[in-house]
Amino acid sequence: MEIETYLPQIAKDLKVDKERLEEEYRKGNILVGTDYKIPYLRFKKGEHDIEEGTVVFLGKQLVYARGFPKIRRAMFLKGALKKHLEGKFKAEEKLDGYNIRTVYLDEVVCLTRKGIVCPYTTEHVKELLKNSKFFEEHRDMMLCGEVVGLRNPYQTKSYPEAKEFGYFIFDIKDRKTGRSVSVEERDRLTVKYGLPCVRNFGVFTAKDSERLLALVRKLGSEGREGVVLKSLDMERQVKYTSNQSTNNDLRYAFKFVFDYGQQFMFRRLIREAFQAYELGLAGKELEKEAAELGKSILIPMVETIKRIAEGKEVTEDFEIAVPDATFGKAFVEHLKHLGVKATIEHVSKGKKETIIKVKRHYPSTNDKTRAYLSGEFCSD
Amino acid sequence: MEIETYLPQIAKDLKVDKERLEEEYRKGNILVGTDYKIPYLRFKKGEHDIEEGTVVFLGKQLVYARGFPKIRRAMFLKGALKKHLEGKFKAEEKLDGYNIRTVYLDEVVCLTRKGIVCPYTTEHVKELLKNSKFFEEHRDMMLCGEVVGLRNPYQTKSYPEAKEFGYFIFDIKDRKTGRSVSVEERDRLTVKYGLPCVRNFGVFTAKDSERLLALVRKLGSEGREGVVLKSLDMERQVKYTSNQSTNNDLRYAFKFVFDYGQQFMFRRLIREAFQAYELGLAGKELEKEAAELGKSILIPMVETIKRIAEGKEVTEDFEIAVPDATFGKAFVEHLKHLGVKATIEHVSKGKKETIIKVKRHYPSTNDKTRAYLSGEFCSD
Repeated sequence: MEIETYLPQIAKDLKVDKERLEEEYRKGNILVGTDYKIPYLRFKKGEHDIEEGTVVFLGKQLVYARGFPKIRRAMFLKGALKKHLEGKFKAEEKLDGYNIRTVYLDEVVCLTRKGIVCPYTTEHVKELLKNSKFFEEHRDMMLCGEVVGLRNPYQTKSYPEAKEFGYFIFDIKDRKTGRSVSVEERDRLTVKYGLPCVRNFGVFTAKDSERLLALVRKLGSEGREGVVLKSLDMERQVKYTSNQSTNNDLRYAFKFVFDYGQQFMFRRLIREAFQAYELGLAGKELEKEAAELGKSILIPMVETIKRIAEGKEVTEDFEIAVPDATFGKAFVEHLKHLGVKATIEHVSKGKKETIIKVKRHYPSTNDKTRAYLSGEFCSD
Repeated sequence: MEIETYLPQIAKDLKVDKERLEEEYRKGNILVGTDYKIPYLRFKKGEHDIEEGTVVFLGKQLVYARGFPKIRRAMFLKGALKKHLEGKFKAEEKLDGYNIRTVYLDEVVCLTRKGIVCPYTTEHVKELLKNSKFFEEHRDMMLCGEVVGLRNPYQTKSYPEAKEFGYFIFDIKDRKTGRSVSVEERDRLTVKYGLPCVRNFGVFTAKDSERLLALVRKLGSEGREGVVLKSLDMERQVKYTSNQSTNNDLRYAFKFVFDYGQQFMFRRLIREAFQAYELGLAGKELEKEAAELGKSILIPMVETIKRIAEGKEVTEDFEIAVPDATFGKAFVEHLKHLGVKATIEHVSKGKKETIIKVKRHYPSTNDKTRAYLSGEFCSD
């Protein structure tokens, strides 16, 4: 397959300079995916107005799926609203799962944030959408939503509304231009086609930072993450999350402390401080917030050390629900190609689906902890 | 001054290959200090058996001051003792100050860890040693010790035994070879010459990890740092510190959160977990330890944000005691050359000495915090 021959048409379709596109390809910033029946290009870096994760399916017709742009995070809500969200905006729930874009070729196809076709998510979303006529009538559109629930290999978190697997739409875009429909239009479409949508908390203005902060904290106390704030035309978006949710992230990351980037933890520590400040926490209240933070750091690390000292391995265990064992095994191989050190622990064939228990391994955390326990010095 | 002409003699004296030494000099790993009346070379990196911070004074005679080697840190005391400290060893107090080597040329000269002549420390140590005949009788030796107390520009921490300025010897070395005298000989010399020495907690073996852990925690509860464990021949040394002291470090670093390396904090979080594990903390005890950790992280950050939100600057304020204002001003200039953003806030001339109040500025923390408060997005 001569990828170069596609580039002039792609450049034209995406309205970018052909030479620049060719250069990006030569530099390795546009990768070729061959893990789907139709080969596809995937933009590794966001450059020249093309978002990271943008995909081009190289079928008889080129089909595009523009990358989902990063939503910026407010550190100090009051300041960020004033600076970035003039006028009215909507607050919607930010779910804690993984971002999936869905397009339709001759069938539903689901793409991860990075633009990799996920056969597992595709299978489930196909099932969810089987009675919806959305793509029949809107072939050029792309559904953008969050997958949540316990049964997935990326981010396992259960929600009452989607214990095992749920897909909640937060944006509908033109797949080729990446342009979003308005919030109103998105709501009309999701209702009309029976598509599950993220929760809507109503309309706010920049003066409502305290109310929004209270809302986010309430969500946090319910084990939920936070909000995305969107101007009604979808032009400006800001995300903001609760410290309780940040503590969840920290608990997870400190369990696998030597496998996670320090920056991951560090940014979260800083976020927590800004939220505590914005809430005006002081005295006992601030100490309580600090204690929660401390527990989220120390306890998972101590549990990890204890487990490894007992000669066990610290792993992440999750389940996937697949049509059959062959599909499941192929998907775990796919995960391995993506760099996830996964092994299948158990396969149980049910009537409707096969449940596969998967173990994810974190060699750095296990090896390093074992080394320290055996007396190895710290590098400082 | 032709530095190259000194290199053959230095190579011979230090028993290293001449070509290699010349190469290190060409590569910029050996710097020239001209801030002292006698110019000196300073080894930036520890290589070819020459410790980082090694100094060669280029006077009529070459005078050496070998760098003080890094003492490795135990993460898990029980494991580290078993692995690294066979037989009997001594436990001495690790003071929380800065490492200073003192040699004698035609006068006392004090060197920082990196091998920079510190005129301020030199002035004070000269005063402390003025009645000691140590260097008169041991011209080839080098005193290695910790400077502690409130009045210094590097690490301000008061000790009951040295509120403002103290210098406590922990090692005596041959200045040219870097070879340490035995613990016994060091004790004999410090007693004979009236030199203050770090505290001695007695002799232990690898079986005493629990006792040592209890000792370290007791030191921590007294606001002290920890211990250095030394084989009696000084050949093997291990340091170990208390979580309480680590929390002190964290409180300080999180106050200036954007000016500190993430690794600084990160390593300390991990240390705390290993200590909590080794102590067998669980349930309420572990929660208490976690709460202390959390407070050390969150509270200083919130205080910093609050202060900056009030339009103030977050700075580090310290005092130095100098012979006169001219000396003080020159020393603050010296600090600036070392990269410390310092300004003189107040000069008060006393009978015996002049006290200068210095403010150290942390531009990253102040700027970044201000930006977030004004609504700037976080980079993730």
